[in-house]
Amino acid sequence: MIAAPSFAAIQAARERIAGSIRRTPVLSSDFLDQEVGAKLFFKCENLQVSGAFKARGAFSAVLNLPAALAARGVVTHSSGNHGAALALAARSRGIAAYVVAPRTTPASKQQNMRRYGAQLQLCEPTLAARQAAADEIIAATGATLIHPFDNADVMAGQGTVALELLEQVPDLDAILCPIGGGGLISGAAVAAHGVNAGIRILGAEPAGADDAWRSRSAGVITPVAQPASLADGLLATIAASTFEVIRTQVQAVGTVSEAQLVAAMRRVWEELKIIIEASSAVPVAALLNGSLPVAGLRVGVVLTGGNVDLQRLPWKQD
Amino acid sequence: MIAAPSFAAIQAARERIAGSIRRTPVLSSDFLDQEVGAKLFFKCENLQVSGAFKARGAFSAVLNLPAALAARGVVTHSSGNHGAALALAARSRGIAAYVVAPRTTPASKQQNMRRYGAQLQLCEPTLAARQAAADEIIAATGATLIHPFDNADVMAGQGTVALELLEQVPDLDAILCPIGGGGLISGAAVAAHGVNAGIRILGAEPAGADDAWRSRSAGVITPVAQPASLADGLLATIAASTFEVIRTQVQAVGTVSEAQLVAAMRRVWEELKIIIEASSAVPVAALLNGSLPVAGLRVGVVLTGGNVDLQRLPWKQD
Repeated sequence: MIAAPSFAAIQAARERIAGSIRRTPVLSSDFLDQEVGAKLFFKCENLQVSGAFKARGAFSAVLNLPAALAARGVVTHSSGNHGAALALAARSRGIAAYVVAPRTTPASKQQNMRRYGAQLQLCEPTLAARQAAADEIIAATGATLIHPFDNADVMAGQGTVALELLEQVPDLDAILCPIGGGGLISGAAVAAHGVNAGIRILGAEPAGADDAWRSRSAGVITPVAQPASLADGLLATIAASTFEVIRTQVQAVGTVSEAQLVAAMRRVWEELKIIIEASSAVPVAALLNGSLPVAGLRVGVVLTGGNVDLQRLPWKQD
Repeated sequence: MIAAPSFAAIQAARERIAGSIRRTPVLSSDFLDQEVGAKLFFKCENLQVSGAFKARGAFSAVLNLPAALAARGVVTHSSGNHGAALALAARSRGIAAYVVAPRTTPASKQQNMRRYGAQLQLCEPTLAARQAAADEIIAATGATLIHPFDNADVMAGQGTVALELLEQVPDLDAILCPIGGGGLISGAAVAAHGVNAGIRILGAEPAGADDAWRSRSAGVITPVAQPASLADGLLATIAASTFEVIRTQVQAVGTVSEAQLVAAMRRVWEELKIIIEASSAVPVAALLNGSLPVAGLRVGVVLTGGNVDLQRLPWKQD
């Protein structure tokens, strides 16, 4: 079974990826601070290479492959930010990146992965078809599967964002991340607790894909039958590896409605002047709807990505 | 007559405003570099307090007022970013900021100025009405007029962006700014040449408000009769003070069509994941349309502001 990375593994990942990723800026807004009643530090991973924090995990994994294995390429079945990030990381090593994506993947996302060099293979939008397509590629090429979150090197890479943030803002009381498969929040929890055992780790999910919230309540992984949300990066179900960290090292998980996440997305665009995607707005929405215990705290908020179709905004034009 | 600030005055402005403004990040994009054929460093003044570089000039001027004068407040007739920035700077000193704005000013801009504490006075949208309203306020209150660009302290403040950028990226070959009234480019030219006499200063304007381009060609200030552009921050006519610098220290001015600036705005949103307003897209459009001599150079591009009405984007939604 895959286990979450150690603090040392996250430190090693940070050294490995240092030359490949950006030290992203931290922004703030007095207006948002006043509204939430906390001091917020937004870690702008939407400004990361590939437009999302996923570059951290992808480079961490790709750069850790032995040369002989790497030469056969890497494969994944994320059609979103992990797919693009993996393609970018693979290109930096001059190796192939095969991405299995459902044929329903929006054209803009397909194009984005292709321009980073991904070799796309479209399949029927079912778990079985996806798995079969990935297996076929692995059998034919010997490529290594780099899972978007259930992979210790990927989690370690994602965790580096917390190390960096705690250097930029050392005296944080809490770090808040969205939860999809849980790779980010588990890496960040291990990393942050390695620096400061007392720091609180908070999560946020859309109400329509609240498997982490349900799993914490039930004490066992509890998938949502039909996860649905505009936050398309947060639809995955947590894995055993990430749940173990979410269960033991995360203090609270807030949930938000679709209307709340759209309003939060727009507020961030307006106040911070940056493009964040719907998934990144979920933690902000959880701060604004009061579902997280942050009053008076200094909170680092990871804004995870900025890959948005600018012709399909989730609010009306006048 | 007002003269452009000296290099020493810009250095002094920088010390004065250091505690009030942000050191904004510098972003880059391999895709944009490839398309332009130059190495571009985007100085993100859209992430500046108040959402625009105008905070530099406003704080520079407001913090330089003697206490007795400051106590009577400040006044201006910019309805855009300078108005909001002046209100913010005034509030930091606990003094009044009166802003005369045409009654046609969009509600979103009025609201933005008010939330920074501006006392708005609406007038008819004519130069005469604006001047009369400002004169009346000055007569009644003794407030000091802080002109948006024809003011040495304001120009000095705007120039600090070039000092900061040249610390962040020391080996630039050129710095590119949009030109409205010319306060930014003249401050930046004096500042940059104070650091490196050989650096090239480039400007950009919308074709519908190309008074700087015309004035350079004619050798004398040549206003555009009816300036018109989506780049509403660039409609002002340059002043004698700014023209003197534009004439002698600026190497080239590129012009762009409305379609080009809209396309450039969208490209920046997509590639850099930041919100820039139409005025900020003009230099990027000039890079993309080939109207500036930048091939192979390292070019600093000042992205001036990010105040956009998100319900009125200049491109269609699907």
